[in-house]
Amino acid sequence: MHKKGNLNYFKLLVTCPEKPGIISAVSNVLLEHKANIVQFDQHTTNPKDGIFFMRIEFDMEETDTAVEKLEQGLRELSESYPMEWELRNKEKAKRMAIFVSKADHCLLELIWRWKSKELPVEIPMVISNHPDLKEVVESYGIPYYHIPLSHESKEEAEQKAMELMEGKVDFIVLARYMQILSPGFISKYPNQIINIHHSFLPAFVGANPYVRAFNRGVKLIGATAHYVTNELDEGPIIEQDILRVNHRYTAEDLKIAGRHVERSVLAEAVSWHVEDKIIVHGNKTIVFT
Amino acid sequence: MHKKGNLNYFKLLVTCPEKPGIISAVSNVLLEHKANIVQFDQHTTNPKDGIFFMRIEFDMEETDTAVEKLEQGLRELSESYPMEWELRNKEKAKRMAIFVSKADHCLLELIWRWKSKELPVEIPMVISNHPDLKEVVESYGIPYYHIPLSHESKEEAEQKAMELMEGKVDFIVLARYMQILSPGFISKYPNQIINIHHSFLPAFVGANPYVRAFNRGVKLIGATAHYVTNELDEGPIIEQDILRVNHRYTAEDLKIAGRHVERSVLAEAVSWHVEDKIIVHGNKTIVFT
Amino acid sequence: MHKKGNLNYFKLLVTCPEKPGIISAVSNVLLEHKANIVQFDQHTTNPKDGIFFMRIEFDMEETDTAVEKLEQGLRELSESYPMEWELRNKEKAKRMAIFVSKADHCLLELIWRWKSKELPVEIPMVISNHPDLKEVVESYGIPYYHIPLSHESKEEAEQKAMELMEGKVDFIVLARYMQILSPGFISKYPNQIINIHHSFLPAFVGANPYVRAFNRGVKLIGATAHYVTNELDEGPIIEQDILRVNHRYTAEDLKIAGRHVERSVLAEAVSWHVEDKIIVHGNKTIVFT
Amino acid sequence: MHKKGNLNYFKLLVTCPEKPGIISAVSNVLLEHKANIVQFDQHTTNPKDGIFFMRIEFDMEETDTAVEKLEQGLRELSESYPMEWELRNKEKAKRMAIFVSKADHCLLELIWRWKSKELPVEIPMVISNHPDLKEVVESYGIPYYHIPLSHESKEEAEQKAMELMEGKVDFIVLARYMQILSPGFISKYPNQIINIHHSFLPAFVGANPYVRAFNRGVKLIGATAHYVTNELDEGPIIEQDILRVNHRYTAEDLKIAGRHVERSVLAEAVSWHVEDKIIVHGNKTIVFT
Repeated sequence: MHKKGNLNYFKLLVTCPEKPGIISAVSNVLLEHKANIVQFDQHTTNPKDGIFFMRIEFDMEETDTAVEKLEQGLRELSESYPMEWELRNKEKAKRMAIFVSKADHCLLELIWRWKSKELPVEIPMVISNHPDLKEVVESYGIPYYHIPLSHESKEEAEQKAMELMEGKVDFIVLARYMQILSPGFISKYPNQIINIHHSFLPAFVGANPYVRAFNRGVKLIGATAHYVTNELDEGPIIEQDILRVNHRYTAEDLKIAGRHVERSVLAEAVSWHVEDKIIVHGNKTIVFT
Repeated sequence: MHKKGNLNYFKLLVTCPEKPGIISAVSNVLLEHKANIVQFDQHTTNPKDGIFFMRIEFDMEETDTAVEKLEQGLRELSESYPMEWELRNKEKAKRMAIFVSKADHCLLELIWRWKSKELPVEIPMVISNHPDLKEVVESYGIPYYHIPLSHESKEEAEQKAMELMEGKVDFIVLARYMQILSPGFISKYPNQIINIHHSFLPAFVGANPYVRAFNRGVKLIGATAHYVTNELDEGPIIEQDILRVNHRYTAEDLKIAGRHVERSVLAEAVSWHVEDKIIVHGNKTIVFT
Repeated sequence: MHKKGNLNYFKLLVTCPEKPGIISAVSNVLLEHKANIVQFDQHTTNPKDGIFFMRIEFDMEETDTAVEKLEQGLRELSESYPMEWELRNKEKAKRMAIFVSKADHCLLELIWRWKSKELPVEIPMVISNHPDLKEVVESYGIPYYHIPLSHESKEEAEQKAMELMEGKVDFIVLARYMQILSPGFISKYPNQIINIHHSFLPAFVGANPYVRAFNRGVKLIGATAHYVTNELDEGPIIEQDILRVNHRYTAEDLKIAGRHVERSVLAEAVSWHVEDKIIVHGNKTIVFT
Repeated sequence: MHKKGNLNYFKLLVTCPEKPGIISAVSNVLLEHKANIVQFDQHTTNPKDGIFFMRIEFDMEETDTAVEKLEQGLRELSESYPMEWELRNKEKAKRMAIFVSKADHCLLELIWRWKSKELPVEIPMVISNHPDLKEVVESYGIPYYHIPLSHESKEEAEQKAMELMEGKVDFIVLARYMQILSPGFISKYPNQIINIHHSFLPAFVGANPYVRAFNRGVKLIGATAHYVTNELDEGPIIEQDILRVNHRYTAEDLKIAGRHVERSVLAEAVSWHVEDKIIVHGNKTIVFT
């Protein structure tokens, strides 16, 4: 949600077993390299012996050499602190491939937010197992690849998609893509595939959640954005939300209401991913909003 | 939520297979008996061949004889329309037994709403398998019965509770009562036992929902008020709500947040039951709010 | 939210001073003309001497003559009951003109819901004081009229808009249209112009609500859809909603969050208007959702 | 919401004009004094020349001398950084005086949360201009002081309250206290008096907000917890929330709904104050939830 207009904006994400002094140590390295901290978020699972997470946005009015030197400093620090870290240049927008089938609501929400500069991302391509959305996607100047898919051709289709994305895509959004990805495909993009599930997980795991929600007589209808893992519908949850419904809603009405929650939940989750606000730990997410 | 101050206020609940003319027929009977309709709610599962539900609040400035005559008129009508109907005098507050174990949050919420005249109900007794809440309940002038419960004594304990309630209680609220009722007990109070389940059903059916919600990393925590049937956690849902949580919440924090949703959801469901706003149909509720 | 697939679907809206027997009388007329009531909603401001409102959806498998006869029956009834009534054929979609300036979020939401058949409406034209959105509107096959506007030309511009709409438009949606309409214009479309105000009215009436919300340090940001009257921002409220914000939100972030509430609140209000679910009474709305 | 069970738990709150290196400098001082940071929150109004806010929870397994030395270190640091800071021992519960009139809903909510140990606070006294709530307050073992109040006796009454609180109270909660405090009284407790206003401020500033909300026909009803300043209803907002209402709600129903929002909003605000999660800056709050 936050736009800061500066040049040379960076984000540092750190995961580390708890050890006293880590904030001090990291902030000293940043200061030494003339990095000015703009936003700082932290979480620990347990102050005694837990895992420590840190997200730092900083400003560095420097050249590429300076960045290299900072990275060198962080590498040296990780000899004392067994930390995993990633440094990201905020100016380099992530490249997002969108996978769709026939439904357009999540796709359009993402495209609108991209077009209005609300979602700082590049969309190098949309990939679909159906031709239906080709025209609307291309009207925004985005390449659309239709890769037909049958039970037998799945491996081949995934191979083709991977070739198209090779070197061009940083993460994937399944915007109501009605196919299950193979473990091989998923392993190529760990914590880089976001799916929107049309229920309030873990309720109604699996197919036809709206019909099942209708039959169960629930009073709220939900949606869940999560990272995709090999356990179907079991990946780390990023965001969830609900809409209130009542006895007048038919299964079809629930589906329509569901579309509205789906698109806002997915777009929110994608915006956090794009701004590096999410750290995945085990099967959970830390989201620094 | 609605208080109307009139005398001789009645509510008529009707369930009937769809048949043209039913609104006309019922409203004619009411008019004939000088009943003035104040609020009218209706629902049909399907206008062609579904089930039709109707809830009518009316005002009748008349004597008991008039009521008898109206009932006679409705009985005659049900020869043409195969309808089930119930007529309730709004002035006669329902009598609610509250079952508790050790947690007091739902209990206190109900007592406070009763005391502040927000919940038009009588509370002839609180029954518990623990002695802990005796003092606070009695401080409100409400009798408290402690019926200890072991695995072997369950039947006997339920028997004792039924004797205590005989002729004194219209419906039962399980306000975090940590025991499973026997089918025999439940069958005595069809659609008259309201439970609060500490999850957003059907997610986390069963025990320890907050720990499981913590482990699953959900971003919303919920509660569900439902009528009790022999299928555990599967009875008709009356109301649900959620609170937003985040990665900072421990399992204990989720439990605390859960308490707040539980008590408001339960109190809302009870208020609808008390005002005869709920019709149960199969495993679902129609709630005329 | 409710789609029913039948032919010859009608809606009857009634406003009448309270008088016993009105439900009976109206439902009898409907029955007599073989109209089968599908949905019935009612409200009264006061059962003693208030105003009574009724909305009836019904199915009539009949010809135009039958409709005329029914209308005749209702006319006759209004000799006994001083009621105002409107009969609407659900099959005839309302025709909506959208007025916009430069912002596209509300416009696109409405167009998308129309295109996805979620909003049963016709959009004969979009009118704007700017040319910016011409291309996107025309890509959906909707005529776009750019009527430039200066302080002096306002009357002329409104005149031109009225001519364009003459006979082609049933109601108007101001989808972030940044001009104040003249009393003359408004009086031509009583309760037929819906505006979206970018605040939780009556907070932040007037201009720049997001900057003022930022300065006041509010924790929720809202939007309000209302009918337009000559009292600026004072017309009958149809729908409101909010989003939670925090100290990290800049005024610009509030504006972005506001866009999301605006479009969902406006689209919801429009859908209710389109399905004749709203009755305006004085400066308030009765919304039969 | 967060309970951590450790001994010697501290919170450090810092406000400082932006200056590079402040996180590094403060965390170094903490490390030097063997303080282990458990939670770290930060906010800046503008990274270039704004105000910087920091909240640090830390654990220090040390004696009182160590705390003195740490304070000395922070004092020395504030020679280089023009920072305001406060160090608070989490173990010392704040002492809260509750001011009430006749309504009990906010009072009981606070007492319940205190009794269930959800709100880590002491309640040394309740002060009221009415005798009505004496019995219920005393039943919890809390002293209740009835200080009658007339227009002439206001100064005297406030004087008496101040004497009662002298040395025994850290902050004051106006739990539906229907009197306006004098500037003299308020100035004794800067940012230490929390009020609950029964509207979604700045809508319906002043008296009778529910009647005015009813007349305006709003679709949401709200409540606002804020610090009290000399500008009535204009103090820094801590928390706000809303409930959805509809045309069926009478002004009385709105009031009842309002009670539920009021008590949860107030209790939430108080819990944040108690855990030192709020920094006031100008007329706004930074709330580190």
